[in-house]
Amino acid sequence: MGVQRPFLHPPAETIRLESILYALADPVRLEIVRRLISGDCPLNCSTAAPSHLPKSTQSHHFQVLREAGLIQSERRGTEVVNSLRIHEIDEKFPGVVAAILKAAKPLKCPDTERAN
Amino acid sequence: MGVQRPFLHPPAETIRLESILYALADPVRLEIVRRLISGDCPLNCSTAAPSHLPKSTQSHHFQVLREAGLIQSERRGTEVVNSLRIHEIDEKFPGVVAAILKAAKPLKCPDTERAN
Repeated sequence: MGVQRPFLHPPAETIRLESILYALADPVRLEIVRRLISGDCPLNCSTAAPSHLPKSTQSHHFQVLREAGLIQSERRGTEVVNSLRIHEIDEKFPGVVAAILKAAKPLKCPDTERAN
Repeated sequence: MGVQRPFLHPPAETIRLESILYALADPVRLEIVRRLISGDCPLNCSTAAPSHLPKSTQSHHFQVLREAGLIQSERRGTEVVNSLRIHEIDEKFPGVVAAILKAAKPLKCPDTERAN
């Protein structure tokens, strides 16, 4: 069994506003962040991401969010759970993520359609 | 003398949050928007953009901002003047640009260095 690489998370002091904005400039990633902020606890990738997407696409989006400093990912057994680094982000860039999420419409995708 | 193409501006109803975020996910474009919002009147490109940049780079940044729906550009004689479409943007996405600009640091660049 191969050794899994640890997730890399930028320290709070190196998180850049431009990277946050770039990470959120995508409807799928906006939707992931919206779901993570709505959940009370860390969410696994399948719950946090629109499920009609291929796993590799999901992974890419989580990676962009992680590298921007927006989310924290952690392996728990066979799954990966994700949470927003909202306190750190909000301390550095007050109100930015809240204003963006308030302005963002929920993504229309097959799994949310089924849920309605 | 060649005929100059008119500037294309997306109508307010087609402006997308993701495009606004993408346009602002760049330190130079953030700086341009910061200067435009600080000015009382439309600014020409040389005043609105950091002047150490080549003209072609400046033009590219104004084009991205224009196509995202953030700015309005207009030819006045031999120069182009730009203004923020802040009322339209703020009506569609309340507080987003304000929160981002508040969090953004002024760009350190040769022309602001000289000014200080």
